[in-house]
Amino acid sequence: IASKLPATGTTIFTRMSALAAQFGALNLSQGFPDFPPDQRLLQRAADAVLHGNNQYAPMAGLPALQEAIAQVVSRHYGRILSAAQEVTVTSGASEAIFDAIAALVHPGDEVILFDPAYDLYEPAVLLAGGRCKRLTLHAPDFRPDWQAFAALLSPKTRLVLINSPHNPTGACWQPADLDALWQAIAPLDTLVLSDEVYEFIHFGEQALSVNSHPALRERSLVVSSFGKSFHLTGWKLGYAIAPPALTAELRKVHQYVTFCTTHPLQTAIAGHLEALPEETFALADFYRAKRDRLRQALAGSRFRLLPCQGTYFQLLDYSAISDEDDLAFCERLVKEVGVAAIPISVFYETPPAGQRLIRLCFAKEDATLLEAARRLCQL
Amino acid sequence: IASKLPATGTTIFTRMSALAAQFGALNLSQGFPDFPPDQRLLQRAADAVLHGNNQYAPMAGLPALQEAIAQVVSRHYGRILSAAQEVTVTSGASEAIFDAIAALVHPGDEVILFDPAYDLYEPAVLLAGGRCKRLTLHAPDFRPDWQAFAALLSPKTRLVLINSPHNPTGACWQPADLDALWQAIAPLDTLVLSDEVYEFIHFGEQALSVNSHPALRERSLVVSSFGKSFHLTGWKLGYAIAPPALTAELRKVHQYVTFCTTHPLQTAIAGHLEALPEETFALADFYRAKRDRLRQALAGSRFRLLPCQGTYFQLLDYSAISDEDDLAFCERLVKEVGVAAIPISVFYETPPAGQRLIRLCFAKEDATLLEAARRLCQL
Ligand SMILES: CSCCC(=O)C(=O)O
Ligand SMILES: CSCCC(=O)C(=O)O
Repeated sequence: IASKLPATGTTIFTRMSALAAQFGALNLSQGFPDFPPDQRLLQRAADAVLHGNNQYAPMAGLPALQEAIAQVVSRHYGRILSAAQEVTVTSGASEAIFDAIAALVHPGDEVILFDPAYDLYEPAVLLAGGRCKRLTLHAPDFRPDWQAFAALLSPKTRLVLINSPHNPTGACWQPADLDALWQAIAPLDTLVLSDEVYEFIHFGEQALSVNSHPALRERSLVVSSFGKSFHLTGWKLGYAIAPPALTAELRKVHQYVTFCTTHPLQTAIAGHLEALPEETFALADFYRAKRDRLRQALAGSRFRLLPCQGTYFQLLDYSAISDEDDLAFCERLVKEVGVAAIPISVFYETPPAGQRLIRLCFAKEDATLLEAARRLCQL
Repeated sequence: IASKLPATGTTIFTRMSALAAQFGALNLSQGFPDFPPDQRLLQRAADAVLHGNNQYAPMAGLPALQEAIAQVVSRHYGRILSAAQEVTVTSGASEAIFDAIAALVHPGDEVILFDPAYDLYEPAVLLAGGRCKRLTLHAPDFRPDWQAFAALLSPKTRLVLINSPHNPTGACWQPADLDALWQAIAPLDTLVLSDEVYEFIHFGEQALSVNSHPALRERSLVVSSFGKSFHLTGWKLGYAIAPPALTAELRKVHQYVTFCTTHPLQTAIAGHLEALPEETFALADFYRAKRDRLRQALAGSRFRLLPCQGTYFQLLDYSAISDEDDLAFCERLVKEVGVAAIPISVFYETPPAGQRLIRLCFAKEDATLLEAARRLCQL
């Protein structure tokens, strides 16, 4: 069989989580919380399964959930949406991103990514017959050089894939970045796919979202995820927000990829959002405290801590400890130190020479974070 | 925006269900049960949500569920599977079908479909850059002419998409059909994607599955769905079975489309299958009774009933009632008679001239079936 994705192996997340299990290591690799979601939301889900509708949901999402999402976007970013025409519920943000790329990228089209880039962007572009061009972001702040970006644009640039707060670096863009992006693409037909799954986990003054940029959002699909916002990564419930014409193309693919998303879990989240509309505000303080706890506990280590402005990921520079490459270092960490982390080089087409960075997920119980830090301090 | 799927509108299922709701009609169009699933399974799901793991499931499926699926296949078809390497859990059979096509069909490849064909096959082929060739099946038995099939094969034929029990016709293939298929493709590199979501809803002596054909199954992906087998279409839980090399390619796509499938619902189904391994046997008798009830109630009508050997769909020929096309007839039915059905022409590239068929879903409470039949008898 000739592979359509010859370069694709098992994702680094599956590999590191498996190694963590095999060696009994603390798993700070794959990004998911190890603490429970809101009990009231779980109770709603149990009720929805027992007493609600377990048959197909409407293809684009439960109307009550589409409406609740529109309310969240309005409250946080002042964007008024048509729930029916601009909000689509998907099986996780992953599906929304895949669908958007499959729907919009034609064979031969170019897509601009910022390296390090989340691992699902490129395969989706390749399957659509597109070609990735990459702009490398540099430590420690990982913000784009907009002149270099402009040089990558061409009439074939169909899509720019952006992600802030940024996985794996924890960097956040500034409002000026969205302006610069808009200035650069305005003269072209280029569209934007904005992966904002960590939108509520940001530690600066205010969240940055394409939803609050009136010009840019008319050319964009914005993707987010209840998995991240409600500590439920295993529910696989995400959504895409886009103007009606883009939404129509996205749904053409969505209706043939999964058709619709788990009905009772949609019922539960819709009810939760209606009952507790302020719930989505609480995340930043919660995760800021975790970030600070981890950083303080690592302050005496030989790791250098990079800035973390958002997401639940902290980058560590281990240059002072080892000159192994980051995959080898992570494998040694999991086996000898009992901590699983993610190497950063896997998110680059060409990793910057000599860069020695690993990622820790701090969406973990405080005791787990402190014990992981204690182990890492021994290096 | 140049559409990748210019011919795609909203699926007929969404359109007819919406019309049914708008006109307060009995909805026998979209295929889903209107009766509750097994309460014990729902209770397991509630427990899994409240007390189980709500974070990412493993990418290829919960090992306990992969194992339970392998047991079902072994029990029913005598096929011994490696759960870890040959079973992949997906977000509904739809996702499995989409992933398989995306993974295997290269630009320029040919895919053979049998018309009438379920509506998600062709768009997936088009998105992969493939081309569909179609063999028309003819009423009343809708079995393929294998000589005509052989004439469609070429060295470019990457995939043949088969579906028995067959939606929308309710026809079932015979063992001789699988042999004929195998004879035809054996000399080529052609693969088979077998959509068997109605595998347990068949009214003949025994179920027919590619899983029980030792030669063919080595070249095939077999797709099925808990939605159909457990009356839970809204859970969106399906699976694909294939030899390791094919499974590896399928998973490369799956890991970037949805990554994994709802964790607590996988927990629930795995527990249910372990506790009640014989549960999946009961479906055929249950649905045969419903089929017979509907057929008897329509016996005095002016519709001609086609044979129904499997699925929960019954075809009706309305030639004696009207010479409208089937879409117009269905629209009139929903508005004037209060019964929503599915026109069959939408499943063909070129519908046979003068064919006047509609599909009724009989996965409905007996009272609903009887009332729908009563209304249809008035025509
Ligand atoms: C889909 S598993 C990976 C989870 C994640 O987003 C991450 O760890 O970066
Ligand atoms: C995905 S909605 C359609 C359900 C179905 O399989 C059918 O009605 O044929």
